[in-house]
Amino acid sequence: MGRWVIVAPERAERPSAFLRPAPQEDHGICPFCPGNEAMTPPEILSRRENGTWTLRVVPNRYPALRTEIQMSRAGEGMLDSMAGVGAHEVVIETNVHRATLAELPAEQIESVLGAWQERMVDLSRDVRLKSVIAFKNHGGPAGATLVHAHSQLVALPFVPEVLRAEERAAAEHFAAKERCIFCDVIAQEQREKERVVLESDDAVVLSPWAARSPFELWILPRDHHSSFETAPREQLRAVAEALRTVLRKVEVALEKPAFNLFLQTMPLREPQNDYYHWRLSLKPVLTLQAGFEWASGCSINPTPPEEAASFLRQTEVIP
Amino acid sequence: MGRWVIVAPERAERPSAFLRPAPQEDHGICPFCPGNEAMTPPEILSRRENGTWTLRVVPNRYPALRTEIQMSRAGEGMLDSMAGVGAHEVVIETNVHRATLAELPAEQIESVLGAWQERMVDLSRDVRLKSVIAFKNHGGPAGATLVHAHSQLVALPFVPEVLRAEERAAAEHFAAKERCIFCDVIAQEQREKERVVLESDDAVVLSPWAARSPFELWILPRDHHSSFETAPREQLRAVAEALRTVLRKVEVALEKPAFNLFLQTMPLREPQNDYYHWRLSLKPVLTLQAGFEWASGCSINPTPPEEAASFLRQTEVIP
Repeated sequence: MGRWVIVAPERAERPSAFLRPAPQEDHGICPFCPGNEAMTPPEILSRRENGTWTLRVVPNRYPALRTEIQMSRAGEGMLDSMAGVGAHEVVIETNVHRATLAELPAEQIESVLGAWQERMVDLSRDVRLKSVIAFKNHGGPAGATLVHAHSQLVALPFVPEVLRAEERAAAEHFAAKERCIFCDVIAQEQREKERVVLESDDAVVLSPWAARSPFELWILPRDHHSSFETAPREQLRAVAEALRTVLRKVEVALEKPAFNLFLQTMPLREPQNDYYHWRLSLKPVLTLQAGFEWASGCSINPTPPEEAASFLRQTEVIP
Repeated sequence: MGRWVIVAPERAERPSAFLRPAPQEDHGICPFCPGNEAMTPPEILSRRENGTWTLRVVPNRYPALRTEIQMSRAGEGMLDSMAGVGAHEVVIETNVHRATLAELPAEQIESVLGAWQERMVDLSRDVRLKSVIAFKNHGGPAGATLVHAHSQLVALPFVPEVLRAEERAAAEHFAAKERCIFCDVIAQEQREKERVVLESDDAVVLSPWAARSPFELWILPRDHHSSFETAPREQLRAVAEALRTVLRKVEVALEKPAFNLFLQTMPLREPQNDYYHWRLSLKPVLTLQAGFEWASGCSINPTPPEEAASFLRQTEVIP
């Protein structure tokens, strides 16, 4: 039915392995802490300062996909399958066990985005990989199984349909208006102010018109650039600063909620274009995905985006 | 971007209203129990036996959409909105406070499906309504806020894109093969047996090839029929019996998990066709929707459907 599902039996040892939630609390030893480097697979990338690492990228120990598998597409009757070629990496965002992303200096958040970018550029050399999903789960209700701040990169042998659909819609808008739809949204939201949470010279944070869940937020670089892969460092810095401020507002306003953060960008290796605009999406986990959402693919959002934006604008945080 | 979101501020009193999970435990008084009928809005439908009700349908007290609102489509700049015309009803499935759907006799489950059907036929008279999502959330992790067994009907002024896409894929299969894709799936799965959980003369339960989550199951009537709205009573009975057995297997095998159940059918008022086939989808809630799923629209399923089916086939339940 035009939909790919990743069947990853290695992530569960037996049918009942997921009956209990994965451990959220540390049992003494954190594999992401300095001194425990041997607990992770060998390092792919690291940043160092004064002889100690400040950020590490390692393969996921329980990968959803692997690069070592030969890619194949096969039919079984009318059903199609594709071997799970891909990559699954973990970015350890800090060497401080209890520091949340919001608590890190803006330079360190920039360093995290820089690591995402460097890994994406490296992964793009494998032409079997078509797209990279960069995301972060913070807190148990958001799907995090370890407390130590980290994000993940999943490289896929296809482009997910939701990304294709968004790209298509943006291309259609451009075909009609000869303007990037996201640049248009930024301009309109700045005139109306209602859904803007904060803005700096180079980045804008807003609660999008059709927010799917309460307090869903977009963090966009102000200048047009389609792919995160080739975004200039100044954009990463501006987005990192805006992300830090809005995360701190969210922590105060919503009492340190669990959240998901992810990158929306073009598929790998696409040349720069006029119609797409990379961004981060932030989703505090406040409501449950229930039967209606699963059945309809639609969302019921109890908080109008204007209210969410107004609430966050009024939330004061120490810079 | 071609996506509708239901913004329902009436469901949250203030921005922080959803910061704490909705109450799951009863605080003494259940609004769905006999004797407390005055706690719900006036009844739309009921079934009675020996002077007492056995099933009731009432409007949702906190509706996501209402029929009383005038339908409108309006533009605000480039953003479109539509007033939330619709309906949101609750089916109280039994008068026994603690009985789960799996514990009810097959006749009572058939009566629940019959009530869904009767309400859909009635709602279809309002031509502003284009589709009905019938679903059930069982247990807190599945989004249920009350213990007393109930399901819900949401009538929408549009057809959700995921339903349109499935309908389109089925129509394309028919155009190419002149056969219903679901009839084809039933035939293929019955030859291979691997993903079949149980079958009766008139219904089949299987773990679909591209199951999005562990132990996702389809319950299909064996005979071709496109719309639940006009399905013959014998199909409702056969599906109710199969549903009861598989729910009991799931309760034993997965230790009474929370689950979502929902109906997949054609939009309202569509004449019977050769390419679509109504069914129920059952999804035990065992894993969390996290950042990757939100970002990519793809699912990572740790349990191959063949393993789920085999595990459930071997699970014995008292008939």
